[in-house]
Amino acid sequence: MTIAATGLPFDDIRKLMQDLLAADPAAAAQCKARDAQLTKPPGSLGKLESMAEWVAAWQGNYPPKIARPVVAVFAGNHGVVAQGVAAYPAEVTKQMVLNFQGGGAAVNQICKTFDLGLKVFELALENPTKDITENAAMDEADCAATMAYGMEAIAGGCDLLCIGEMGIGNTTIAAAICHGLYGGRPEDWVGPGTGVDAEGLKRKASAVARAVALHKAHLSDPLEVLRRLGGRELAAMAGAILAARTQRVPVLIDGYVASAAAAVLHAMRPDALDHCLAAHCSAEPAHRILLRKLGKEPILDLGMRLGEASGAALAAGLLKAAVNLHNDMATFASAGVSGKDQ
Amino acid sequence: MTIAATGLPFDDIRKLMQDLLAADPAAAAQCKARDAQLTKPPGSLGKLESMAEWVAAWQGNYPPKIARPVVAVFAGNHGVVAQGVAAYPAEVTKQMVLNFQGGGAAVNQICKTFDLGLKVFELALENPTKDITENAAMDEADCAATMAYGMEAIAGGCDLLCIGEMGIGNTTIAAAICHGLYGGRPEDWVGPGTGVDAEGLKRKASAVARAVALHKAHLSDPLEVLRRLGGRELAAMAGAILAARTQRVPVLIDGYVASAAAAVLHAMRPDALDHCLAAHCSAEPAHRILLRKLGKEPILDLGMRLGEASGAALAAGLLKAAVNLHNDMATFASAGVSGKDQ
Repeated sequence: MTIAATGLPFDDIRKLMQDLLAADPAAAAQCKARDAQLTKPPGSLGKLESMAEWVAAWQGNYPPKIARPVVAVFAGNHGVVAQGVAAYPAEVTKQMVLNFQGGGAAVNQICKTFDLGLKVFELALENPTKDITENAAMDEADCAATMAYGMEAIAGGCDLLCIGEMGIGNTTIAAAICHGLYGGRPEDWVGPGTGVDAEGLKRKASAVARAVALHKAHLSDPLEVLRRLGGRELAAMAGAILAARTQRVPVLIDGYVASAAAAVLHAMRPDALDHCLAAHCSAEPAHRILLRKLGKEPILDLGMRLGEASGAALAAGLLKAAVNLHNDMATFASAGVSGKDQ
Repeated sequence: MTIAATGLPFDDIRKLMQDLLAADPAAAAQCKARDAQLTKPPGSLGKLESMAEWVAAWQGNYPPKIARPVVAVFAGNHGVVAQGVAAYPAEVTKQMVLNFQGGGAAVNQICKTFDLGLKVFELALENPTKDITENAAMDEADCAATMAYGMEAIAGGCDLLCIGEMGIGNTTIAAAICHGLYGGRPEDWVGPGTGVDAEGLKRKASAVARAVALHKAHLSDPLEVLRRLGGRELAAMAGAILAARTQRVPVLIDGYVASAAAAVLHAMRPDALDHCLAAHCSAEPAHRILLRKLGKEPILDLGMRLGEASGAALAAGLLKAAVNLHNDMATFASAGVSGKDQ
């Protein structure tokens, strides 16, 4: 799972993307068969039923299992904050990493509530990526090495991966990636993020417009979009999603920034995110548009816009319930419950 | 909290409804004040923030606490099943009660996942209520005594109450109550329930139309709607919701049938459900219409239509996360995180 730091590293990523594992139809069929016997009317657990089946199909194993769920939070810093796009100073990224490590952040409390493991990945915070309005954010070696580092999220084993991020300025980065991948107007892809005012919002749209204009000759290649308009935590999340696919680990994608990272893989290959569910729809307005582009229906819609995998961790609680329902409910036969009249 | 089984029992209910406790503005203000100091942008946890505040305001205490959550499932049988309105035979109600007691039903697995207490109330299953197309379902003494029995849901103490039901035929009962309270067409209020076919759906609409026509001279009084068109598990749920209000216990209302029981109180007094949240929106189509009548936005929308408090128990997991977030997150000062630039 290591990517060469020299040579043509993006070619190694492209090679990995060529042979993506498929869902396991046998595990899905076993789920369907047991589901029909559980003491409930068919279909009455709604999306919880398809969630259990999805876990089994992508784990390639029956029964589905969530015994070692991991929440991975990737943190990066961004040269584009020089454009006045963020409501908080850049040092907050590092301060929040310490907060994650100290157990005081939002994601820590959700992990404790639902018994989820938490891993925090700090990505050269002292060395922000370059300002995308003036340069490519990363060179190819940096971007590919960061993707490889993101693949470490599943090292040590896990059976569900929740991915999220922390990075002051990174909703501007997400907007630049979306505008680079999908076009439209820059204004469609920017939002208040952590809470910029109207002037800040204009600066975000302007930065996104200028960045995409600067790099536009190179944006037909999604990996070029990632390295030119992206950031390290986004490259790492893309790597983590890809690694999860190779190891049969289902993924819950958090909010707008995590979805923008995932969109790079989706642009390379439309089925690249079939092992991922959108955990929630963020209050950041462009997230709803992006989820539609990705063909993903969010599990939760609670007006959250925090990042740091908080929405993904919350949805992981529901996914655990879905798997427990499937595995532990009685059957009509075992409980002596009569079947349907008609 | 006992209601006289003789005399004018509905008058006792009316008296309880006159002096409903209000939310505690001081507890809500304390929540708001701490929320502003937590290490996250203001508002970024969306509905989770208002959920924590709502718990504190209705508990009348700060901090909010969910240490003894109770899921109460009420089971009843219905004479109206004689009209061919249900997909399963009536004996399934009792069989499912045994399944709840044996730990094999859906709600058991959700309670285990989120560490919620479960209480099952069996309401004279061997003695179904009368067929509402021919008679009033209950007399006043039966209805009021059943409401009083429902009040036992919070006996022994709890700090969150989830209410739900089991009762073959009771989506027809819920539809009759809604048609009785809100008018419209019978077809607007009936749905497939546990899975009746098109002919069954017609029989449901016909039964609802005939029942409401039979009792229509008495339907201006919501308690008469409950006793004539209702059922015991609905009366008990209405009692439980009312008792929770008197004891400052916030309530999560499950699906269509539980919401129809709640609607009786709402029709008596529009603020009667202010201490309740709608846990989810059911796939039973009329539930969305009913929630709009009640002015409630559901927390979850997962296409569930099982009843037995399954949606309420699932939402209780999110409510626990919301309270843990509020109580246990670090503040900007305690974690040494910088505040907003602008």
